[in-house]
Amino acid sequence: MVIDGRSESHDNRIRLGMVGGGNDAFIGGVHRIASRLDDKFTLVAGALSSTAEKSQASGAALGLAPDRIYDDFKKMAIREARLKNGIEAVAIVTPNHVHYAAAREFLKRGIHVICDKPLTSTLPDAKKLVKAVESSNALFILTHNYTGYPMIRQARDMILGGELGKIRVVQVEYPQDWLTTHQDIKQAEWRTDPERSGAGGSTGDIGTHAFNLASFVTGLELESLAADLQAFVEGRRVDDNAHVMLRFRGGARGMLWCSQVAPGNENALRLRVYGEKGGLEWAQEDPNYLWHSPFEQPKRLITRQGAGAGEAAARVSRIPPGHPEGYLEGFATIYSEAAAAIMAARRGEPCPEEVIYPTVYDGLKGVQFVDACVRSSARNAAWVKLS
Amino acid sequence: MVIDGRSESHDNRIRLGMVGGGNDAFIGGVHRIASRLDDKFTLVAGALSSTAEKSQASGAALGLAPDRIYDDFKKMAIREARLKNGIEAVAIVTPNHVHYAAAREFLKRGIHVICDKPLTSTLPDAKKLVKAVESSNALFILTHNYTGYPMIRQARDMILGGELGKIRVVQVEYPQDWLTTHQDIKQAEWRTDPERSGAGGSTGDIGTHAFNLASFVTGLELESLAADLQAFVEGRRVDDNAHVMLRFRGGARGMLWCSQVAPGNENALRLRVYGEKGGLEWAQEDPNYLWHSPFEQPKRLITRQGAGAGEAAARVSRIPPGHPEGYLEGFATIYSEAAAAIMAARRGEPCPEEVIYPTVYDGLKGVQFVDACVRSSARNAAWVKLS
Amino acid sequence: MVIDGRSESHDNRIRLGMVGGGNDAFIGGVHRIASRLDDKFTLVAGALSSTAEKSQASGAALGLAPDRIYDDFKKMAIREARLKNGIEAVAIVTPNHVHYAAAREFLKRGIHVICDKPLTSTLPDAKKLVKAVESSNALFILTHNYTGYPMIRQARDMILGGELGKIRVVQVEYPQDWLTTHQDIKQAEWRTDPERSGAGGSTGDIGTHAFNLASFVTGLELESLAADLQAFVEGRRVDDNAHVMLRFRGGARGMLWCSQVAPGNENALRLRVYGEKGGLEWAQEDPNYLWHSPFEQPKRLITRQGAGAGEAAARVSRIPPGHPEGYLEGFATIYSEAAAAIMAARRGEPCPEEVIYPTVYDGLKGVQFVDACVRSSARNAAWVKLS
Amino acid sequence: MVIDGRSESHDNRIRLGMVGGGNDAFIGGVHRIASRLDDKFTLVAGALSSTAEKSQASGAALGLAPDRIYDDFKKMAIREARLKNGIEAVAIVTPNHVHYAAAREFLKRGIHVICDKPLTSTLPDAKKLVKAVESSNALFILTHNYTGYPMIRQARDMILGGELGKIRVVQVEYPQDWLTTHQDIKQAEWRTDPERSGAGGSTGDIGTHAFNLASFVTGLELESLAADLQAFVEGRRVDDNAHVMLRFRGGARGMLWCSQVAPGNENALRLRVYGEKGGLEWAQEDPNYLWHSPFEQPKRLITRQGAGAGEAAARVSRIPPGHPEGYLEGFATIYSEAAAAIMAARRGEPCPEEVIYPTVYDGLKGVQFVDACVRSSARNAAWVKLS
Repeated sequence: MVIDGRSESHDNRIRLGMVGGGNDAFIGGVHRIASRLDDKFTLVAGALSSTAEKSQASGAALGLAPDRIYDDFKKMAIREARLKNGIEAVAIVTPNHVHYAAAREFLKRGIHVICDKPLTSTLPDAKKLVKAVESSNALFILTHNYTGYPMIRQARDMILGGELGKIRVVQVEYPQDWLTTHQDIKQAEWRTDPERSGAGGSTGDIGTHAFNLASFVTGLELESLAADLQAFVEGRRVDDNAHVMLRFRGGARGMLWCSQVAPGNENALRLRVYGEKGGLEWAQEDPNYLWHSPFEQPKRLITRQGAGAGEAAARVSRIPPGHPEGYLEGFATIYSEAAAAIMAARRGEPCPEEVIYPTVYDGLKGVQFVDACVRSSARNAAWVKLS
Repeated sequence: MVIDGRSESHDNRIRLGMVGGGNDAFIGGVHRIASRLDDKFTLVAGALSSTAEKSQASGAALGLAPDRIYDDFKKMAIREARLKNGIEAVAIVTPNHVHYAAAREFLKRGIHVICDKPLTSTLPDAKKLVKAVESSNALFILTHNYTGYPMIRQARDMILGGELGKIRVVQVEYPQDWLTTHQDIKQAEWRTDPERSGAGGSTGDIGTHAFNLASFVTGLELESLAADLQAFVEGRRVDDNAHVMLRFRGGARGMLWCSQVAPGNENALRLRVYGEKGGLEWAQEDPNYLWHSPFEQPKRLITRQGAGAGEAAARVSRIPPGHPEGYLEGFATIYSEAAAAIMAARRGEPCPEEVIYPTVYDGLKGVQFVDACVRSSARNAAWVKLS
Repeated sequence: MVIDGRSESHDNRIRLGMVGGGNDAFIGGVHRIASRLDDKFTLVAGALSSTAEKSQASGAALGLAPDRIYDDFKKMAIREARLKNGIEAVAIVTPNHVHYAAAREFLKRGIHVICDKPLTSTLPDAKKLVKAVESSNALFILTHNYTGYPMIRQARDMILGGELGKIRVVQVEYPQDWLTTHQDIKQAEWRTDPERSGAGGSTGDIGTHAFNLASFVTGLELESLAADLQAFVEGRRVDDNAHVMLRFRGGARGMLWCSQVAPGNENALRLRVYGEKGGLEWAQEDPNYLWHSPFEQPKRLITRQGAGAGEAAARVSRIPPGHPEGYLEGFATIYSEAAAAIMAARRGEPCPEEVIYPTVYDGLKGVQFVDACVRSSARNAAWVKLS
Repeated sequence: MVIDGRSESHDNRIRLGMVGGGNDAFIGGVHRIASRLDDKFTLVAGALSSTAEKSQASGAALGLAPDRIYDDFKKMAIREARLKNGIEAVAIVTPNHVHYAAAREFLKRGIHVICDKPLTSTLPDAKKLVKAVESSNALFILTHNYTGYPMIRQARDMILGGELGKIRVVQVEYPQDWLTTHQDIKQAEWRTDPERSGAGGSTGDIGTHAFNLASFVTGLELESLAADLQAFVEGRRVDDNAHVMLRFRGGARGMLWCSQVAPGNENALRLRVYGEKGGLEWAQEDPNYLWHSPFEQPKRLITRQGAGAGEAAARVSRIPPGHPEGYLEGFATIYSEAAAAIMAARRGEPCPEEVIYPTVYDGLKGVQFVDACVRSSARNAAWVKLS
């Protein structure tokens, strides 16, 4: 176990701020637990809500010093950049349409950004954000958290190491059921508003995860896609179900299905990859297991830290096999990888080779994926390229 | 349990002949067990192989009287039709390209036909076979055997009864792995030869099953499809992997994936259906289970003959819950349904309402499905209608 | 696939009679399907019920000739033994207390006996039956049907071949739930009547299966047991739940749990065996899978006819992997093994070495097991030996 | 979600010390993550190893101030009790034989104790520790962490609420495989040394967890047990496999199996409870699922935060259904419950009614359980009472 309970000493923890993540947000709390789990960060500042009052209340509840609570991310970026012990990194956990504007303020002041996915709500914003990252000396980490699961690292390592041979077929799916009917809750509201979420509904919220995961694990580049999007619930302005056919460079083919209207599916992200020499199967809801089927041999169950799992998985595991790690641990791994990169930057050293985190380019591809899905669907599921 | 061990008396068993199914065939043996399991048939004649010598050897091994062993299905049809106790029904279990010619001979002589799927190897043949059936007073039963599974009957009954509400999404897949590499065996040889198998490879052999199952369970009519077919194994002349997007009348959407190159999948036909009020999931390799997810209620495991399973499943079950029935029992149900229809015909009565079996029209749709997949794929996965 | 659809020719099928198994019995129908599935037997006579009227009705429904329907097993044995084409074998499927008396009549007339389990309802009867078998030249086959499952044969082969090393721990359990409350049905009535079922309730009905399976697969001999039996349902006269600790010769230890009052368990026979070098796990409700865990290697899923399964399983398989075989096929294997032994006896040859079926000695052990459980429980779960 | 990302403000976090848990320990790191996850504690002092040098190294690695690193728990207790901002609580994570001596020092100085299980290595120590707790005004929390799993809380709530009716049968098991052969690692060394671990091997290390879990969930009191212990690995001085029959007050019966020599079992704690009205099944390796089988209704899958799960589970959940929580989250719940109790004590208020944590009395029962197992086994598995 490499990520053990060992913390950095208090003075060395990375000083973290947060934009968004006020009282009634879901993902903000997840980011905070994730930042804390491996003890590499300490949360010291925040612009948690869009109103001063709510921001103060949320910040106080989190134990932030009153003068480190801001009602505006720009003020926060300006002041923290000047403070002697100002934040070194910021977590951006707002609705999608705010990501770019917020990230830009911190990036241009040299503050590292850890940003929730999808990268932005529009493709132009995504491209601007890429430029903002390229012209900053700060790091940008996108929390495609599912890439933090040990068995996903294991799968990637096996495929890049050639254990499946040349990849032929990639089946990835991400069904949920929480939007089966109209939902009057905040989580649903902004996620189904194209102004805040972007033109993609399920494609943006979860399809990007599925696409990112397939790309991460296989190392394949998407060449083109054909997408058939639907909004099944009456009055819904963005897709809540998407069927997508995928063509990868080099000849592999795939399918991606994401849905928010599939009753019985809580968060059923699932990836299956088949190559000339074998297959791999993984399901997010049971993340400690990876099925490996070498062709003409019995299927093998590889478990986190168990026999058959290698160094790539062990690096990001905390506890022994049979002691399940879950969603928060996978998310924390993204933070720990970010920490490793930031610590290296502190020391003026290059990021260690084994450290892996999703970048702004991965984020751009995600937004391009959504854009391509929407364009293809508008053209009756014609094949389109990412652009 | 409705299909119990009770047999018809010996004189009343339906006299069955078989075309194809010689010594080294797979599906012929399956048909014979299926015909025997519920004791409604007795095999008395056969044209089991394409040569007289092999036919005699196979027939003798099966205990057929020498004068009821034929080297040619036409001779068999002619003579058996004249015999006092000639066959009443024939099972056709040859490679696909022979189905039409063989079926025609029996149909026109009033002998009922039980035919393996897909209906034919070409669409013109399929249409001719429909006419042959329509102009015969004999019955035609297609062995889409997966419709015989009790939990499939249960699923169909629930959906047609409205338990899922309006159907939105249909995910059906049928991956296998046995053709991951080139295979020098008879089963593989004819199935990958377009002259004998038809223009579809995996689409014809297993895609038709998947398509039929989805149609049978949901009652939905396909409006159009977009298919991306591949032949991954070098030199293979028919598809061994197919990704298909489906649009059904009434607005439901779906995906169909079939593959013969997905290592770790033995015979992994799986159907998932999602409606406004709930979801259903079923997997052929674990056929005694049906998962039902009423929206916002816990997922329920309905088992064959267990609590929660109804009359439609019980009608075609033989033994109590927890005593697994399998592939052969599902196949035998098709034979028992055929027997019920044939017995009714014997008595000059209409077929009982509750008896269900796949018809020549289902078979035609299957061949149209393959044809549409091939046409769509040739046009870069454009949407095409069945024709 | 060794047990294919190939039937013996009609004249060569073994002529079978049946004692018990009238209209409303469960296990009689199972025996008939099992005898038919591989086409080695033909049912020609029966004493199916205890009254002449019921027997005639049941026999007629089964298509038996009226003069081969008997109202008494003794009359049947006497007359059939004299007929030129009288039965060669009889299936005894009555309640337990009739097994001995019925079997004796056929054995002493040289008619092979295929008998349902447990062997008898009392230990003295069991010992007398052993003698009856030993003094007959007819064969005696006990239908401990779970030994017919291919993956059970596979497990046995692996253990006897040393793949697990020396066996240390055997966990076997057989929970059901159908007697959770008092049940007013025939199946329940005689099974909970000590006069007909024997002194053991769940121990006799299902505990014997569990004990037999553990012994069959491991080859271990039981040295002593300590049993704590309960009758949880008020008024029940036999145990409906049993906890048993097992000590085997050579040092292995085990536990056996059987229950008929465990809601959620339909027929959940499950065996787990652990040795110095690995473990095996199998569950009856999903019988086509065998889990093999070589120590310090990933768990492997061995499937019927799949990679990793050997000749012992293939011998008793009918169809390819992924096409599930079930309870009836496993039961049919017992009949096919019996047929192989009977055919050899017909030819005056020894039974082929690879043929395996449960014997009267296995049956005696089962009755001794029940007797030991009852004795131990009466002495506050003291250790007792089989006697 | 009740335990969200909201942290106490920094000044309010509970100041925590740790005894044991130096560099190469497993459970120390787990306790630290668990204490951190919900942000209720801050680690400020430690006596982490038995030598001064190792203690300093470990403490420095954890970022402790040098003057808060001790080489002796007694010195630590004395000094910390006098400091103005000394620790309020201490986590004791040493080998078992040190628990009592360490806990005593802190308890008598009013410092709350969070102690790893089993309570002590000997029964006399356990009884002395009970007295030490009773004569202290500090709290004592035992980390039977499996009681922190949400679905365990759900199961307990359902059973205590009568949903299963009167409980009849309790099947609990905890197999592992890591000690299948002799292991030369520190974790194995002390756990198999009776001087440090106690007279029980597997019974103490994992059997106590299983026993505690069964008691916690069912609320049943053990009346007597009969145990058959084995040390299968040559030279091992404590049991590595135990078969135990259980009799509970009120008539319920049970079985407990724990093993460290069962290949293929990583950490397979599993609990099944059956009552007059239904059954429940739960497995630690898949902890977000609880199977509920109401008698004569379909089995239902209750998921953490999903439909069907109630307030008792929601109280200790952090994230939505389908986002798996694992071992660390369950462990953290014990810390959060401890924090709630300690916070209440700070305020001079009684502990909130809904707060649940394992107490010293639960710990005493665990040691009594081990003692009873050892005594019973020495008397050939005679029934013994806890004493």
